[in-house]
Amino acid sequence: MTPITKALEIVERETKPLAAESVDLADSVGRVLAEEIKADMDLPPFDRSQMDGYAVIAADTANAPVSLKVVGESAAGQGWRGRLKKGEAVRIMTGAPVPAGADAVQKVELTSENAEVVTIIEPVKKETAIVRQGSEIKRGTAIFKAGEVITENMIAVLASFGYAKVSVGKKPRISILGTGSEIVEVSKKPGRDQIRNSNSVMLDVLSCRFGGKTKVLSNVGDDIAELKKVIRSVSKTSDVLIITGGVSVGKYDHTKTALAELGAEIFFETVRLKPGKPIVFARLDRSLIFGLPGNPVSAAVTFHLFVRASILKMQGAASTSLLLGRAVMGTDVKANRERDTYLPSRFETNKLGQLVAFPLKWQGSSDFVGYSRADSLIFMPKGSVRKKGEVGEIAYL
Amino acid sequence: MTPITKALEIVERETKPLAAESVDLADSVGRVLAEEIKADMDLPPFDRSQMDGYAVIAADTANAPVSLKVVGESAAGQGWRGRLKKGEAVRIMTGAPVPAGADAVQKVELTSENAEVVTIIEPVKKETAIVRQGSEIKRGTAIFKAGEVITENMIAVLASFGYAKVSVGKKPRISILGTGSEIVEVSKKPGRDQIRNSNSVMLDVLSCRFGGKTKVLSNVGDDIAELKKVIRSVSKTSDVLIITGGVSVGKYDHTKTALAELGAEIFFETVRLKPGKPIVFARLDRSLIFGLPGNPVSAAVTFHLFVRASILKMQGAASTSLLLGRAVMGTDVKANRERDTYLPSRFETNKLGQLVAFPLKWQGSSDFVGYSRADSLIFMPKGSVRKKGEVGEIAYL
Repeated sequence: MTPITKALEIVERETKPLAAESVDLADSVGRVLAEEIKADMDLPPFDRSQMDGYAVIAADTANAPVSLKVVGESAAGQGWRGRLKKGEAVRIMTGAPVPAGADAVQKVELTSENAEVVTIIEPVKKETAIVRQGSEIKRGTAIFKAGEVITENMIAVLASFGYAKVSVGKKPRISILGTGSEIVEVSKKPGRDQIRNSNSVMLDVLSCRFGGKTKVLSNVGDDIAELKKVIRSVSKTSDVLIITGGVSVGKYDHTKTALAELGAEIFFETVRLKPGKPIVFARLDRSLIFGLPGNPVSAAVTFHLFVRASILKMQGAASTSLLLGRAVMGTDVKANRERDTYLPSRFETNKLGQLVAFPLKWQGSSDFVGYSRADSLIFMPKGSVRKKGEVGEIAYL
Repeated sequence: MTPITKALEIVERETKPLAAESVDLADSVGRVLAEEIKADMDLPPFDRSQMDGYAVIAADTANAPVSLKVVGESAAGQGWRGRLKKGEAVRIMTGAPVPAGADAVQKVELTSENAEVVTIIEPVKKETAIVRQGSEIKRGTAIFKAGEVITENMIAVLASFGYAKVSVGKKPRISILGTGSEIVEVSKKPGRDQIRNSNSVMLDVLSCRFGGKTKVLSNVGDDIAELKKVIRSVSKTSDVLIITGGVSVGKYDHTKTALAELGAEIFFETVRLKPGKPIVFARLDRSLIFGLPGNPVSAAVTFHLFVRASILKMQGAASTSLLLGRAVMGTDVKANRERDTYLPSRFETNKLGQLVAFPLKWQGSSDFVGYSRADSLIFMPKGSVRKKGEVGEIAYL
């Protein structure tokens, strides 16, 4: 059995980044930046008023109330071009440029204007309500690095610096194949001894979430010739092929045999992991091939550990590992004796501001109904035990 | 100023759920369930083997090693139909039905077969490696309720119970309008006094994330007649209209005037909130209209507080509020004196398993570069102060 960290190293080593492509900004969320994002202008681009009110020389207001001559108006998009002199004020709007000479903005609520003369009711301190040009960001500053995953919260920055198009890593083409004679399509009523194929659609939505461009193939039964035919054909055009089922040691577990007979390079066949010990990682033609276990929780956990890392790296992501944090155990938890264990869990926070992780009910690794509530995995080194209240590592899903 | 909770009540009260529609399971992530999801079969649907090995009568193995006659084979999708008798074993695969009469499965590694006789090397306890029919889920059990947002982790369950199509709330049609003469399109180089329109694309991706079907309109300058024309036209066809800018008290802040002149029902105009005091909520024709502040951080925060709740409720979501938790403050934090405050923040966990929230650098409410790293908002009641290390409330973005 390959240790988890070693298996991850192999996945990283064998995964090569794809080329970049240019996409519309609105379509860039979830994609991986392939270029450094730089400020193409100062922010703010001019001394900006934070208030509606009057741009003044602060010293003029020291003995307020005081009356100042209104010499102009500065609106957003249409600044006043003169230079403010002693005894003068300029009417100004939120977001508008503060005129030269002014060093403060008094808010409109503390003023009263009549016939081009404004009464400033209270003194205002220097720099009040002014955001100076470049005080937030200087032109040329690097904001985001290549390799970062674009989030909704980054979009306003990209827009402000003119990235109407963004260079991102291409989406890996991912084919998804379910195997096994017991598997029927989701739309069918399973016969005796049969179950529906829940893995293919699950892996489809997971792959899409992490940037894949997916194609779900028709299930293949326990026919090794048919399986080989599909794998050979798909390997020529896909960047990744995910196969579920048939990776165990049973008589009809053909995935490994098929891969071997096709001459695929097999990197590992089992990982010291629960759930998910039988997992095959191989390469054939242009495809990296992941053979995941047939049960949905094992398939999901191994997806998150290995396939996700590979898909992200293909897109050029700088960080491909599951995000790890620390949490208090909500109940006693126990690892498998021989294999490092990832327990699906759900967390909440308590009055001390602690994250408390509760393992979800599972039986063997088959209870995907419990797993449906998971937002995290509790990581437990093999043979370890943690009591309720002890702190351990969790990975966010 | 309307208090935040009161404003949220009004938004909830005025938002009516849309009709349901049926979508393909693979397209259902992020949508809101409009039907209860029930198990249409027991899970497992038959007594299922968790191992590759031999189905046996446990008592037969008490004095192992022992030899048993192999009377058949049970594969996934093709069970053995007989009834196991004393002294007999059935070869069985992972996921296959355990034959009647058997009460344990011994794993293949602890067996050795030769000429239809298997040697069971170690005793096996009753029920070992068998998951009994219905032990995970009984047919007819309700699994998910209408009003839940569908996640990737729920997909395998929906697939297993035959939901190839799922009934979900319709996507609200959302129009997004930027206003102000200082605003230019993202693809343009801003002139003197101008900035790019970062709000429209940000609100576009945020609206999509929470299930909206968006249309970004061309910016309108400070021309009230044009603004009224656009609002009147869009209100006839959109479920939601989001307008940014023009909601303050400046001379060219036309949004409220335009709405009033069009006869819109205005529910509130300012909220006791920082950032985001000026926020208009109104209805005209079939549209709910949100007038958000022009600066991106205020627009984002007010989106998450109000627009998100409205969009989710339109889709029938049972819970529309921001998810709240508790976290330790990473630095001293301070609320606005008069307004409840949401400070954009980023969290990590510490060795005690605590969430530690760090407010992001912001200047006034304009520093959207800092905000781009936010994953949460620290909630601070007006006038409150929290020292570094104290526990407070945060909302996840």
